[in-house]
Amino acid sequence: KPRYNSDIYKVANIPGVSIGLAWTYVGGDILFMETSLSDGKGELKLTGNLGNVMKESAVTALSYLQTNAKKMAIDAKLFEKKNIHVHVPEGAVPKDGPSAGITIMTSIASALTGKRVKPYLAMTGEITLRGQVLPVGGIKEKVLAARRAGLKEIVLCWQNERDIKEIEPAFIKGLTFHYVKTMQQVLDIALG
Amino acid sequence: KPRYNSDIYKVANIPGVSIGLAWTYVGGDILFMETSLSDGKGELKLTGNLGNVMKESAVTALSYLQTNAKKMAIDAKLFEKKNIHVHVPEGAVPKDGPSAGITIMTSIASALTGKRVKPYLAMTGEITLRGQVLPVGGIKEKVLAARRAGLKEIVLCWQNERDIKEIEPAFIKGLTFHYVKTMQQVLDIALG
Amino acid sequence: KPRYNSDIYKVANIPGVSIGLAWTYVGGDILFMETSLSDGKGELKLTGNLGNVMKESAVTALSYLQTNAKKMAIDAKLFEKKNIHVHVPEGAVPKDGPSAGITIMTSIASALTGKRVKPYLAMTGEITLRGQVLPVGGIKEKVLAARRAGLKEIVLCWQNERDIKEIEPAFIKGLTFHYVKTMQQVLDIALG
Amino acid sequence: KPRYNSDIYKVANIPGVSIGLAWTYVGGDILFMETSLSDGKGELKLTGNLGNVMKESAVTALSYLQTNAKKMAIDAKLFEKKNIHVHVPEGAVPKDGPSAGITIMTSIASALTGKRVKPYLAMTGEITLRGQVLPVGGIKEKVLAARRAGLKEIVLCWQNERDIKEIEPAFIKGLTFHYVKTMQQVLDIALG
Amino acid sequence: KPRYNSDIYKVANIPGVSIGLAWTYVGGDILFMETSLSDGKGELKLTGNLGNVMKESAVTALSYLQTNAKKMAIDAKLFEKKNIHVHVPEGAVPKDGPSAGITIMTSIASALTGKRVKPYLAMTGEITLRGQVLPVGGIKEKVLAARRAGLKEIVLCWQNERDIKEIEPAFIKGLTFHYVKTMQQVLDIALG
Amino acid sequence: KPRYNSDIYKVANIPGVSIGLAWTYVGGDILFMETSLSDGKGELKLTGNLGNVMKESAVTALSYLQTNAKKMAIDAKLFEKKNIHVHVPEGAVPKDGPSAGITIMTSIASALTGKRVKPYLAMTGEITLRGQVLPVGGIKEKVLAARRAGLKEIVLCWQNERDIKEIEPAFIKGLTFHYVKTMQQVLDIALG
Ligand SMILES: [Ca+2]
Ligand SMILES: [Ca+2]
Ligand SMILES: [Ca+2]
Ligand SMILES: [Ca+2]
Ligand SMILES: [Ca+2]
Ligand SMILES: [Ca+2]
Ligand SMILES: [Ca+2]
Ligand SMILES: [Ca+2]
Ligand SMILES: [Ca+2]
Ligand SMILES: [Ca+2]
Ligand SMILES: [Ca+2]
Ligand SMILES: [Ca+2]
Repeated sequence: KPRYNSDIYKVANIPGVSIGLAWTYVGGDILFMETSLSDGKGELKLTGNLGNVMKESAVTALSYLQTNAKKMAIDAKLFEKKNIHVHVPEGAVPKDGPSAGITIMTSIASALTGKRVKPYLAMTGEITLRGQVLPVGGIKEKVLAARRAGLKEIVLCWQNERDIKEIEPAFIKGLTFHYVKTMQQVLDIALG
Repeated sequence: KPRYNSDIYKVANIPGVSIGLAWTYVGGDILFMETSLSDGKGELKLTGNLGNVMKESAVTALSYLQTNAKKMAIDAKLFEKKNIHVHVPEGAVPKDGPSAGITIMTSIASALTGKRVKPYLAMTGEITLRGQVLPVGGIKEKVLAARRAGLKEIVLCWQNERDIKEIEPAFIKGLTFHYVKTMQQVLDIALG
Repeated sequence: KPRYNSDIYKVANIPGVSIGLAWTYVGGDILFMETSLSDGKGELKLTGNLGNVMKESAVTALSYLQTNAKKMAIDAKLFEKKNIHVHVPEGAVPKDGPSAGITIMTSIASALTGKRVKPYLAMTGEITLRGQVLPVGGIKEKVLAARRAGLKEIVLCWQNERDIKEIEPAFIKGLTFHYVKTMQQVLDIALG
Repeated sequence: KPRYNSDIYKVANIPGVSIGLAWTYVGGDILFMETSLSDGKGELKLTGNLGNVMKESAVTALSYLQTNAKKMAIDAKLFEKKNIHVHVPEGAVPKDGPSAGITIMTSIASALTGKRVKPYLAMTGEITLRGQVLPVGGIKEKVLAARRAGLKEIVLCWQNERDIKEIEPAFIKGLTFHYVKTMQQVLDIALG
Repeated sequence: KPRYNSDIYKVANIPGVSIGLAWTYVGGDILFMETSLSDGKGELKLTGNLGNVMKESAVTALSYLQTNAKKMAIDAKLFEKKNIHVHVPEGAVPKDGPSAGITIMTSIASALTGKRVKPYLAMTGEITLRGQVLPVGGIKEKVLAARRAGLKEIVLCWQNERDIKEIEPAFIKGLTFHYVKTMQQVLDIALG
Repeated sequence: KPRYNSDIYKVANIPGVSIGLAWTYVGGDILFMETSLSDGKGELKLTGNLGNVMKESAVTALSYLQTNAKKMAIDAKLFEKKNIHVHVPEGAVPKDGPSAGITIMTSIASALTGKRVKPYLAMTGEITLRGQVLPVGGIKEKVLAARRAGLKEIVLCWQNERDIKEIEPAFIKGLTFHYVKTMQQVLDIALG
């Protein structure tokens, strides 16, 4: 299995790439989210064996960024002139659920602004259309997967703090947690 | 589970957000309905793991507001120049049924007029294309969920008044009920 | 359950609303059919948890009215400038079958001409593209439901007259029946 | 059940209406095929609870008539300026199979030329894109249904003649059979 | 069952008609493939109860002919000005699989060039986008069906020659076989 | 079964054709990937009995090439003026999974640049939207199939090197392996 070592990091370190934490049938895992832009008419393409709920997260993320483009310093014309493609390797693994919401939004925002996501940063949380971050499940398994992969910081909803408190401290030594309430806070941390 | 405390309230207090009462497989619950506008060609986007009947409620709500735009003080050009996105967190929970009709219509009307929904107000009821409000089921469970969440006023169809009369008064102490016949009355209460 | 009392009547008494008789899994029932127009490009929207056969009835009704617009005193430009939305409450009840045909056509014709449907009038019958009315089933249960709801006149296919003859006269006292062969006769009675 | 008596005949006697013979789950039956034109962009609408094979017959019929418009004395501009709606009552009965092909093509040709179909004439047979008529099954049941309905002439593929020979002559007394090889022959008989 | 006697031949002998060999649930059979052109915008219509793999063969055939139009002496403007309809009677029989590929391509090429397919010629083989012909199964049953129908020449992939060698010579007396590697060779034989 | 002998090679040696290694229900196999361009509006057509994950690989490949067109020396106007058709014979075999990703991208890049793929070269690996190559499964079976077919060089993800080390050396004698990290490296080898 690929790991987020410094080798992979060099390749991943381009705008449009963010790292999420998922709870798949094999347990906690990290998921790269990749967004690229190409000339087009504002179409959203979604690939990577995604279920309907995860696809809806991407639609919601895009609407939020379009509605709040000015506040996010995103050029509003991009939504009309570019196609936006979000891909989540690895294609053999079916993926679903709302917990990738903030990671997908960060990936898209990174591609649209051209700013790279902070390295060694992962995240998990549901987004809402009004910009709130909602808590998600499977926190322990996700955090352990992040640590195994060599990641260093994790963004979570403030309501997931209690889940972190229940993990044996030795298991999460060296990890920094960011507890957030809004999508704006996620982007402040991720895109600086 | 998230609760409608004053903390959440501050975040939610923007145009386009209304609060519905639902009867899910875990019992009564509150549902935020979020509508945002972005530049577009009048497309309606619906996300949040919604079933077909709930999606049809949103289509019906939009038709009603478009047909009656003048009466509602809505700029009719918005229906051609904006895409309208209605999202209902939480994505992990499948949602269906007609009872979210008046809440979705209120959410859309709030976004289109820029008026915020009255705080601490929830609602449940089916809409019709001619503007009537129809009664719905699960009233007791929905009302108790509203109270647990700290809400204070509830809008219902006048034909659901008998369901409120059957609830032990102590359980609904402090709640104000508004019984309505038409969608116009809902909007008068919600958007003032 | 809602009843067609004078209170509901006042609300329902606008162009685009007609009353059908249906045979649902709970027995005979009345169904309101609602049509509204909004600016658009001639799209037909159908909501209300309708099955494919009932949806096809609406498509057939619309074609008939468009082809015969001049004879019906309908402005032919409306079919290009307006979207036509037909909604059948109550969303929680699945509805299907061809028997709502003449009721849907009456609802659309009422919306397109701006003429209100005659009050206390219900109807049931299949339409054809050439304007004939065909007989339908479940007549006894439908007629009894109409009477329970306080309706006074019922439009039926002439071939359903034998079904009325088989009902105990006391059960249908006070009801007036109109037996028709063509859609033109239905509209003459309903829109006067 | 409706019968093709002289009363129905008066209503049916307009361009666009032809009569087919079908083999449904209740045995042989007659099926009216109705085509109407309305202003549009050449869209084909198909209603009447039709299965995929019967829908494909209609698509094939339309292609044949469009490709051979000149030979059929059809104004080729109609295919671009009109929507063509083919409806087959009765909506409660599912219908499928290729045997309605020549009847649908006759119905469309009648609507496009404005010529009425010869009265008391029924037909059954599969069409091909090159204009051949192919044999179909269920001939005995179909022919008996035609006679019960009071019809007088029947168009069939020449390869179905052997099926007619096997029917007891007394059962088909008074019926005239036309055996054809091509769609052109069908239209010569039906539209004269 | 229809047979390819000289009577049918006269009707079939128009551009756009080719004869394939299929292996259906009733054993080997011949299949007519019919292509017609009508004014349009380059749409491909496929009818005849075809499965997805057979539909994909038609899409592939069309791409090949469009990409290689000049080499095939096909007017490239036809792909934009005409709709292309491929129909395979008999509609009651489901058809699928890749083996009709070269027959469909021949049918389309015949319609586009206006050249008739050589009479008494049948074929079976999968096509590729680069113009190769691939071997297919069921050769013995297909060849016997061709002979029963009175056909005289058969085009096959060179890799199917071994299948012909295994058939008792008396069974295929009088048949001529053409073994090909490319689609170009098929068209040289069929459209000469 | 077709084999990649020099005879087939001559036919295959045109731009747009690449060779992948697949793991089907019959074991390891080679798959030709064919891409052709025709005049159009940038539509992507996918045929060959492909599952959803393989189709998504093609969509991802196309996005990557469009976004990085300049770097790849691809004329960016081709994405708007041409339809791109990717076909994978043999249609009778269902194909799925992400491992064809780099082969499909090579096939498309070959068609778009007009450069032929290096002969006797096969490949297998998942692509990502950011241009990384990911490891895939079934390596032993795939490599043995490549050798049986007479291929000489194989491109793999560097993380699949361990899978090659586990194969008995005698089985892969004469084969050259290229271990890559990025899609750019694949194209450097394949299109030179
Ligand atoms: Ca993984
Ligand atoms: Ca995540
Ligand atoms: Ca909840
Ligand atoms: Ca509600
Ligand atoms: Ca009711
Ligand atoms: Ca009715
Ligand atoms: Ca009947
Ligand atoms: Ca028929
Ligand atoms: Ca046959
Ligand atoms: Ca064939
Ligand atoms: Ca193979
Ligand atoms: Ca591969």
